[in-house]
Amino acid sequence: MNYQKVTPELVALLADITGPGYVIHDDREKMLPYSHDEIFESGYTTMPEVVVKPRTAAEVSLIMQLAVQENIPVTPRGAGSGLSGGAVPLYGGILLSLERMNSILEIDRENLMVVLEPGVITNELNRSLAGEGLFYAGYPLSLENCFIGGNVAENAGGARAIKYGVTGRYVHGLEVVLPSGKIMELGGKRLKDVTGYDLLQLLVGSEGTLGIFTRITLRVLPLPPASAVLLAPFPDVESAVKAAPRMMIESGIVPAAIELIDRRSMELGCRFRNEKAPNMQQAGSYLLIEVDGGTEEVERNYNILADHCLEGGALDVYVANTPSTREKFWKLRAVIGEAIKAYCGDNAAEDIVVPPSSIPALLAETESLSDRYGLESVCFGHLGDGNVHIHLLKKEDTMTDEKYWQAIHTMLEKLYTIAHQLGGTLSGEHGIGHKRKKYLPFVLGETELDLMQGIKAIFDPTCILNPGKIIGPDPTPEE
Amino acid sequence: MNYQKVTPELVALLADITGPGYVIHDDREKMLPYSHDEIFESGYTTMPEVVVKPRTAAEVSLIMQLAVQENIPVTPRGAGSGLSGGAVPLYGGILLSLERMNSILEIDRENLMVVLEPGVITNELNRSLAGEGLFYAGYPLSLENCFIGGNVAENAGGARAIKYGVTGRYVHGLEVVLPSGKIMELGGKRLKDVTGYDLLQLLVGSEGTLGIFTRITLRVLPLPPASAVLLAPFPDVESAVKAAPRMMIESGIVPAAIELIDRRSMELGCRFRNEKAPNMQQAGSYLLIEVDGGTEEVERNYNILADHCLEGGALDVYVANTPSTREKFWKLRAVIGEAIKAYCGDNAAEDIVVPPSSIPALLAETESLSDRYGLESVCFGHLGDGNVHIHLLKKEDTMTDEKYWQAIHTMLEKLYTIAHQLGGTLSGEHGIGHKRKKYLPFVLGETELDLMQGIKAIFDPTCILNPGKIIGPDPTPEE
Repeated sequence: MNYQKVTPELVALLADITGPGYVIHDDREKMLPYSHDEIFESGYTTMPEVVVKPRTAAEVSLIMQLAVQENIPVTPRGAGSGLSGGAVPLYGGILLSLERMNSILEIDRENLMVVLEPGVITNELNRSLAGEGLFYAGYPLSLENCFIGGNVAENAGGARAIKYGVTGRYVHGLEVVLPSGKIMELGGKRLKDVTGYDLLQLLVGSEGTLGIFTRITLRVLPLPPASAVLLAPFPDVESAVKAAPRMMIESGIVPAAIELIDRRSMELGCRFRNEKAPNMQQAGSYLLIEVDGGTEEVERNYNILADHCLEGGALDVYVANTPSTREKFWKLRAVIGEAIKAYCGDNAAEDIVVPPSSIPALLAETESLSDRYGLESVCFGHLGDGNVHIHLLKKEDTMTDEKYWQAIHTMLEKLYTIAHQLGGTLSGEHGIGHKRKKYLPFVLGETELDLMQGIKAIFDPTCILNPGKIIGPDPTPEE
Repeated sequence: MNYQKVTPELVALLADITGPGYVIHDDREKMLPYSHDEIFESGYTTMPEVVVKPRTAAEVSLIMQLAVQENIPVTPRGAGSGLSGGAVPLYGGILLSLERMNSILEIDRENLMVVLEPGVITNELNRSLAGEGLFYAGYPLSLENCFIGGNVAENAGGARAIKYGVTGRYVHGLEVVLPSGKIMELGGKRLKDVTGYDLLQLLVGSEGTLGIFTRITLRVLPLPPASAVLLAPFPDVESAVKAAPRMMIESGIVPAAIELIDRRSMELGCRFRNEKAPNMQQAGSYLLIEVDGGTEEVERNYNILADHCLEGGALDVYVANTPSTREKFWKLRAVIGEAIKAYCGDNAAEDIVVPPSSIPALLAETESLSDRYGLESVCFGHLGDGNVHIHLLKKEDTMTDEKYWQAIHTMLEKLYTIAHQLGGTLSGEHGIGHKRKKYLPFVLGETELDLMQGIKAIFDPTCILNPGKIIGPDPTPEE
C-alpha cells in the first residue's frame, strides 16, 4: 500500500475542520491509548500519525475527503474495547475517534425507537431508557465501556442473543459517511423495508471498513417487569453443557441468557474480585441462567428451569431475583475476561460459535488439542447460543514465547477446521479485524472471499478506510 | 439487453439436465401460469421461452452455467404469489421454477433450527412443526400458498412483524447458486456469526437478482401455549389508528399483531366470503389484535388491551380464544386482498411503510390525494408495524383506463414523496420487482442506487439473473 505520510500541512487542515483542540499530533503519550484495542495478545499495537476527534457527520465527511485527496489511511475508532484489532491504525495515518459524538438525540416512545450518535456508551442508553419503561436488548458484557457505534460496527452479540438476537436485529436506521466523504441515510424508524438491497445490514458488522456511522436508529422494547438469575454449580463441564439444550426443549422456555463458566474461569474471576462462588470445592462448572418477563411468568419459569438443572445433575441452584443479587451473579461472569488478562496478560482469546448441540464436541476437541500442544484451556461464554470463549494459556512457565505462539497458531488452524466441520465458524461476536484475517480461508470459500473483496472495492475503491481488516491486502510492517 | 433466444438445442440441453418431463416448451397453455405473479395491475405478464423445473442445487447450477454460456436470461420463481412482478420473465428466456424442491430436510429440536428446500409452502412448515411443539414465526398472509424460498427472496413481512420481526431475522443459513453457477454455502445453525461481511442478509430480500436459494436454514421457536385474537370495531379509522400505539406504550405489551381493516375492506371481504362482521352499521374501521404467550399471560394481556380499545373509542371488543374462532377472525383479514381483486380486477395495490406514529398523517394525505385525483382508496394492513396496504380504485366507472393509470402514476409520485417525508418508504414487504423500479429515486439517493448497482454487478456481471428487477437496465418490450 503506497499511502502518503501525514504532514504538518495535513494536521493544520484537520485542525481547520474540527478546531485545533481536537487534533493530537506529535504527542506520543496522548496518542498511545489510540494505538491498540482490548485484544489479549501482544503484537496488535500501531501508533497513528494523527488523532482527530470530529463532532459532526459534516466534519467526518471533510476528513474523509481530505484523506482520499491526500491518500492517507483512516481508521475509525469507538471505545477501543474491541477484541480483534479492528480499531488499530495498522498503517498509521489518521485515527478518527468518535468519542465526542456521544449524544442520545431522541427517545421516541410512540415508535419504540431511539436515535443516537455512535459514541454513546451502551449502558448509558439503558440508564436513559429505564425511566421511560424501555430497554435496549443488546447486551455485550463490555456494556459499561463500549460504544453503540462499535456494537453496530462489530454486530455485537453478547449474553442475551439466545432470546433477543444480536445487535443487527435492532438497527433500523444509519447515517453513514462513506470513504468518498458522501453522507448516506439508510432506513429509519420503520420495522419493515424491502426497498432495494439491504445496505443497512451489510454495513452492520462491517468493522469500520465500508463506512463510518454518524447516527444510529435502534429499536427498543418495553422493559420486562421482572427478571431472575439462577446460578447452578455442576460437577463437571459436560453435565452443564448437556443440561442447557434439554431444559429449553423440554420446558419450551427460551431464557434471556444461558452462560457457561468453567471451574478455572470461576476461580480466576473470584480471585480477581476477592469473592467466593458457592460450591467451589465440588463444582467443575457453573451455569448462569437469566429469565425475564411478567412477574408470575418469571417465577414460574425459574422454578421450572431450576428443577431441570437439578435433574441434569446440578449440585444446587441459587436464585437471584433482586437487582443487587442479580448484578452480583452477573459480575462473576462479566469479570472473567479481565480476570484472565490480569492473571496472564498474553493469551489467545477465542470466539468460536457452533450449533449449541455441538458444544460438547467442541469442548472435548479443545481439551484434547490443548493437551497435545502443551496449553491450558479456560472456557466460558454464551452456551445458549453456541458462542464459547476459549482462552489458551501456557501450561508451563518454561515454554518460550516463540514456542507458545507457534503452538497457538497450529492449534487454531486445527480448532477452526473442527469448528467448521461441526457447523460453526471462527467468530461469533468479536469479529475478524486484523487478528483473524489470515484464518478466514479456514471457514470461507474462495467465492465468498471474492464477493467480500468486491463489496469492499465498491464502497472503498482506494482502500482508504480501515485497511488491513477483514479482507484485502495484508499490512506491511510500519517503517 | 442483447440476450440470445432459446433454441431447440438449448431446450434439449435443459432436458438433459432435469429430464424431459420437467421442461415445458412450445405449449402456451402450460406456460401461461409462469408468465405472471399475483400482482393486481395488468401489464405485468410476459411469456417465458422455456420453463424448467430442477430438483437439486447441482441441476440449478448446470442451468445457470448453460444460461451464461448461451447468454439467455433466467428468472427464478417460487409459488408466484408475489405482488411486484418479481417472478415475471420480462425478457422471456428461461423460467426456473423451484416447485419441485419442496422437502423439509430436517427439524432439529436441539438447535431449534429447520433445514428445508425453497419450494416448501410456508404453512406446511408450521403444520410439520406443530407436532414438535415448535413454530416458525414468519407470517405472510399468503402463507397457504407462498413458498419459503419466496419469503426469503422478498424478505417477507406479514402480520406478526411487530413482535417477531421479518423473515430475515430467522434465516441463519443459505445454500445459494450464483449466476455463474457456483454453489455457495452461507451461515448455518448458529445464532451469531461475524465472519466477514454479511452476505447472507444481503441475499435475503434480493428478489432473485443475486442468487437462487436451494437450501434454507431457519430458526424456529417453542410454540407459545396460548393465543387470543381481539376484533374491535371503531367508529372511524382515526380513532383506531390512534388507539394502537397508545395501548402498547401504556400497557408495555407488544402484541403479536395489530391489523387495521377499514370499513370498505371489511365490506368487500365479508361480501366475498358471504359473511357478516359485527357492528357493520356503525363501524368505520376494525382493529384485529393478537396476543400470544403463556396461558395466564395471554388472558391478562387481552383483557388489558380490550380495555385500552374501549377507552380509545371502540364500539365493542370481541375475543376469540379457541383455534376455530381465532381462524375465523384472521380469515376476515386474510381474504381482503383477494376480495378487492374480485371486486375490481385492475387496481394499484400499495405497500407503503412509515413510522407507526405517522400512519394518521399518511392516511389523511391518502384520502386527500385520492379525492383530488378522482380515486377511491381502500386501506388495510399491518398497523402495528406501520405497513399499510392502500388500494387505489376507480371512483367513477366512466373514467377511462388511460386517465385512471395516469392519475395513479401522478398520485403515487406524490404519495411516495410524502411517505419519504414522513420517515417511510415505498415498500414494506411486497418488494420492488419490476413494478416499483421506476419509483426508487423517490426514496433512495444516487449514492444508494450506485452501491446497489455495484453489488448487482459483482454477483451477476453479465446481468443474466432476473434482469429488469430492482436495479439495472430497464426492460425493452418483447419482440
